[in-house]
Amino acid sequence: MIALKNITVVLVNTAHPGNIGASARAMKNMGLNRLTLVQPKDFPSGVAVGRAATAVDILDSAIIVDSLEEAVANCGLVICASARPRKIPWPMLNPEEVAKKVTNEMDFTNIALVFGREDSGLSNEELQLGHFHVQIPAEEKYSSLNLAAAVLLICYEIRKATSKKNTDEKEKDNELWDQEFATVQQVEHFYQHLEQVLIDIKFHDPENPRQLMQRMRRLFGRIRLDVMELNILRGILTNIEHSMEDKKLR
Amino acid sequence: MIALKNITVVLVNTAHPGNIGASARAMKNMGLNRLTLVQPKDFPSGVAVGRAATAVDILDSAIIVDSLEEAVANCGLVICASARPRKIPWPMLNPEEVAKKVTNEMDFTNIALVFGREDSGLSNEELQLGHFHVQIPAEEKYSSLNLAAAVLLICYEIRKATSKKNTDEKEKDNELWDQEFATVQQVEHFYQHLEQVLIDIKFHDPENPRQLMQRMRRLFGRIRLDVMELNILRGILTNIEHSMEDKKLR
Repeated sequence: MIALKNITVVLVNTAHPGNIGASARAMKNMGLNRLTLVQPKDFPSGVAVGRAATAVDILDSAIIVDSLEEAVANCGLVICASARPRKIPWPMLNPEEVAKKVTNEMDFTNIALVFGREDSGLSNEELQLGHFHVQIPAEEKYSSLNLAAAVLLICYEIRKATSKKNTDEKEKDNELWDQEFATVQQVEHFYQHLEQVLIDIKFHDPENPRQLMQRMRRLFGRIRLDVMELNILRGILTNIEHSMEDKKLR
Repeated sequence: MIALKNITVVLVNTAHPGNIGASARAMKNMGLNRLTLVQPKDFPSGVAVGRAATAVDILDSAIIVDSLEEAVANCGLVICASARPRKIPWPMLNPEEVAKKVTNEMDFTNIALVFGREDSGLSNEELQLGHFHVQIPAEEKYSSLNLAAAVLLICYEIRKATSKKNTDEKEKDNELWDQEFATVQQVEHFYQHLEQVLIDIKFHDPENPRQLMQRMRRLFGRIRLDVMELNILRGILTNIEHSMEDKKLR
């Protein structure tokens, strides 16, 4: 994921160093590592280090500049986070759309993701440096996200889009399982065995089946039994039969 | 978005109250408001209030319980966050798949989203109370997300899916189902009954359990038993017991 290196997170005038640390951690979780700070109020800071956990390397290599203009000078795509609609509407994306745009362009150009102050966001002048604005969908009456939370969500969508790009979602059902799935034939033998035992224990009357076996098929069919599970179930059935035999012989 | 009220975020044994506050804020941003805390180490706490910003109402109404089992007792769908693959793999979803499942079912059943300890996550026993596990895609060498970050991402995906739900064709998982799903408590009683019968028929030796009950939990947990199926299975277990008694008496 080398191209994620072309993406820089820019935090403007951050007041709380904890938010810088938490943003670094979120970035690193999602595979990003370039951080630029525009006039941070309190940095470097032990609080930032604490919240960064093992993403301290991102703090150490962070670039500190005096203006947003300087921060995005070499970028071909600038996306600014914006909590509220502005007087002058700007091309507005949601996080998924941002991710799509970023993954389409990150091989060719430097990209900046810009996040404003905790209390007041970005100024109109700063917002106008962005090619696009992004708004994170949130509860109407409670839409103010923590700064690091906003950074995380955008980075997360970018990561998702990047991973999809390569693999496209494959069904993983099978790959992640530790056992082979049982074949239809094996499962049919299990149903025959099960039905016999259900008759023996007087739970099932083939003369009056009441859809019982159908329901059992729907139940176990839904599970997609693996081979070990099938063997366990067959073993249980056999032991039920033996237990009944034992008692009979006594 | 009334149905989001059926979703409870459960935080197990959280060490840092700041993470509880930040989780509450993330929940409120995304429109969720039910929080249950299992043995929090430091709560109530001013630190939690500080990080919650104006989501203090969620902290005030949080329910505190002694065990995860208690927390999820009345839930029909339980999803556990899991950072690493376990010895016995469990049905694993990504956050989008969780969101789809949750939005399909939140009108019909109580749902729990369970998050473990900051350092060690959920124990194997706790994880087995979940019908599904969710793993948040993250950088391989740096996959440990902050607790509130994990809560945020799952709630964010649920919010996205809920908004889509109205416009999109929805998956029919549940609507097509003819029965209510069993609650965790009902299924726990079934496991207890099953274990007793497996001991009686000498299939299971609690002194040498060989992960048998774990495998049974994984097997039945995978399908989310409905109430009628549960009653059938309990009936079968009872008849096995009676059959053994009958033979004994003859």
